[in-house]
Amino acid sequence: MPDSADITNDAIDASRRHFLHAGAVIGGAVLTGGIADASTIETSNLPPNVPKWMKVPGEPMGNQPYGTPSPFEKDVVKNISKDLPQYLSASARAPLQDLDGIITPNGLFYERHHAGVPTIDPTQHRLMLHGLVVRPIIFTMEDIRRFPSESHIYFLECSGNPGYTKPYGKTASDLVGLLSCAEWTGVKLKLVLQEAGLRPDAKWVVAEGADAAALTRSIPIEKCLDDSMLVYSQNGERLRPQQGYPLRLILPGFEGNMNIKWLRRLHVTSEPAYSREETSKYTDLMPDGTAREFTFYMEAKSIITRPSGGQRLQTKGFHEITGIAWSGRGKIKRVDVSVDDGKNWQEAQLQEPILTRALTRFRLPWRWDGEPTVIQSRATDETGYVQPTLAELLAVRGENYFYHNNAIWPWRVAADGEVSNAANA
Amino acid sequence: MPDSADITNDAIDASRRHFLHAGAVIGGAVLTGGIADASTIETSNLPPNVPKWMKVPGEPMGNQPYGTPSPFEKDVVKNISKDLPQYLSASARAPLQDLDGIITPNGLFYERHHAGVPTIDPTQHRLMLHGLVVRPIIFTMEDIRRFPSESHIYFLECSGNPGYTKPYGKTASDLVGLLSCAEWTGVKLKLVLQEAGLRPDAKWVVAEGADAAALTRSIPIEKCLDDSMLVYSQNGERLRPQQGYPLRLILPGFEGNMNIKWLRRLHVTSEPAYSREETSKYTDLMPDGTAREFTFYMEAKSIITRPSGGQRLQTKGFHEITGIAWSGRGKIKRVDVSVDDGKNWQEAQLQEPILTRALTRFRLPWRWDGEPTVIQSRATDETGYVQPTLAELLAVRGENYFYHNNAIWPWRVAADGEVSNAANA
Repeated sequence: MPDSADITNDAIDASRRHFLHAGAVIGGAVLTGGIADASTIETSNLPPNVPKWMKVPGEPMGNQPYGTPSPFEKDVVKNISKDLPQYLSASARAPLQDLDGIITPNGLFYERHHAGVPTIDPTQHRLMLHGLVVRPIIFTMEDIRRFPSESHIYFLECSGNPGYTKPYGKTASDLVGLLSCAEWTGVKLKLVLQEAGLRPDAKWVVAEGADAAALTRSIPIEKCLDDSMLVYSQNGERLRPQQGYPLRLILPGFEGNMNIKWLRRLHVTSEPAYSREETSKYTDLMPDGTAREFTFYMEAKSIITRPSGGQRLQTKGFHEITGIAWSGRGKIKRVDVSVDDGKNWQEAQLQEPILTRALTRFRLPWRWDGEPTVIQSRATDETGYVQPTLAELLAVRGENYFYHNNAIWPWRVAADGEVSNAANA
Repeated sequence: MPDSADITNDAIDASRRHFLHAGAVIGGAVLTGGIADASTIETSNLPPNVPKWMKVPGEPMGNQPYGTPSPFEKDVVKNISKDLPQYLSASARAPLQDLDGIITPNGLFYERHHAGVPTIDPTQHRLMLHGLVVRPIIFTMEDIRRFPSESHIYFLECSGNPGYTKPYGKTASDLVGLLSCAEWTGVKLKLVLQEAGLRPDAKWVVAEGADAAALTRSIPIEKCLDDSMLVYSQNGERLRPQQGYPLRLILPGFEGNMNIKWLRRLHVTSEPAYSREETSKYTDLMPDGTAREFTFYMEAKSIITRPSGGQRLQTKGFHEITGIAWSGRGKIKRVDVSVDDGKNWQEAQLQEPILTRALTRFRLPWRWDGEPTVIQSRATDETGYVQPTLAELLAVRGENYFYHNNAIWPWRVAADGEVSNAANA
């Protein structure tokens, strides 16, 4: 174990020292026991105090059997779209600019509904598995819970996150808040399919939700036999109703709406269903009038969440730039950050462990000189794919394309420290 | 990508097939397109239905900006000790038997308070760093947030989890529910100490909370310069008040109460404070009348959470045994499970990624023959330390010892499937 003097001797990167003030030279002074030439810390210079909350007993916890956030965090809530009819089509974005790490708490997980949120009694819920199987089965939740389980941290993202329509929004949440990440627990879909026995002509599985929209999507059998899961728990506890309670399909890396909530039916077929949600919606119209269908994978993407739109740098000097990166194709390999409007790029540090198809937190130390600039991040995944610019995407896809916008997102930093969406300029 | 026939050809462990019924032979049948000799699934044999919640729109989400669990999960709550005076000493255990994976949701995270839960305005909160430093500093939360950040998944466990006093409780939560695990984000304590500059005689840091108990513990400087953190976020969002909002000390692997909540003061000293919480409490009385002090590390431990006390196996046949293992010394290396009252042990499967000082989920497939038995798990950590039996601990420590009970915990399975705490027999 190091002794206390090591803190002045060890080989810490000098850039990671003395963040809040410039010019302090402490090392030598400490070694000789003298007082360093420490400049005043930029921000706080407050007297000691004994706060009022130390002078009286705190709240008992007995009246809150399930905890809630601090009242001082009351504005950190889901960012709910007001312009969608709640019963037909609703969405809520995670407040990404206020979140740290990679786990999204269940109360703030993004939502996208097509007929509201059903309240399902788990003892009455059924999963029907039929079609091109040897033995059709109807499972109860008890049955599903008896299968061997697995737990994995995966992101989930809506394919229209954001669309290509200006204005793109002001905050990181407005832009890419239809994105969250959780630890999911459930059973591999493969095991459940094995229980029924697939026939040789089984090529697709058509999954249907038990909401009033009966949301239906077709999934290639290869994905079903790979990492797909039937999950019943999210971040330790049972799924929330908004996330498909009591049972949800998770297709790691595939667009969000295929991860069918309130899962009630798996129909094994030789052809896709060509449902509303894979023809009229969630297909990608190209400039030549054709449409791309079954564009399942969410490609590599990243965004800086701090500093980001709607925030303000209070002072020049040291600020950490941090954000999240993800890829439906696997692990994030690197994230580059530019602080000079794209002229130069520096490799950001990635928080370990880097997990496949999970969010990856990236960070870069930055000294802001107080001049206006544009900052942005660019993700590269393990396949070598590099996140494109919006201009590059538009050049290929045109203006009619709506889904799968994974463009680099630049933030403008003004001289007064205000951060805004540079793509809205 | 595999084609659909691969499901019958690939080298899946036969023990992971056909869980819910015995004797089905599907493989060959599928390859030839014939119908397999599938036995009836044990549990469900229900007709197809269209549930009532598909026939009406679901709830709109607009009236719930911060989500909550399903009303059908209303009994999955903190397990609150009724026999402690809330304003002086209170505890709530996580409902481990109802949780999956390794993340504890913030609403169910365990709690232990010594003077209730203060409601702290983060803009008024201060952290004072003084004593054997070159430059004393008082930080605001804004200051703390400007430091470079890190995120890590660590468990937290009360040192009296459980004590050595019979009866030990009925459920996994009663026994070891003063245990939880979360992704924490904050700043390395080392960076903050560097900002002030440690003097050569700095050997301890005395940390104090801003609750009415002013809970105070002394931490060796080596730990402060290693992996210790000042955290402001837990599972993505800001700390809950019950977890120390707005600032908490995290000492990975050290007993829970040293991870000071509502952190207001770090006093750098050459000697420990010998505070109430490290003399009268949280010391370990040995049979010879001496007391062990500063027993910081939580040693390797595990418990089966399913099936566990209070649960009931509905039928013989396949059941997955699952539980959690952890060690304050680092990573879990292996977990062994016995299903025959300790005569034989099998190595359980550990869920990847295995993280240092985090919970590790283990699993073992099991076919229960319907006979009464005792099941239990035994953790080994990367130092080679093996979780002891309660008898082994008592032989060394005697009956007066209270904290640091990391004994193996056996569950009795009766012929009717009822599971109970075998150590209470």
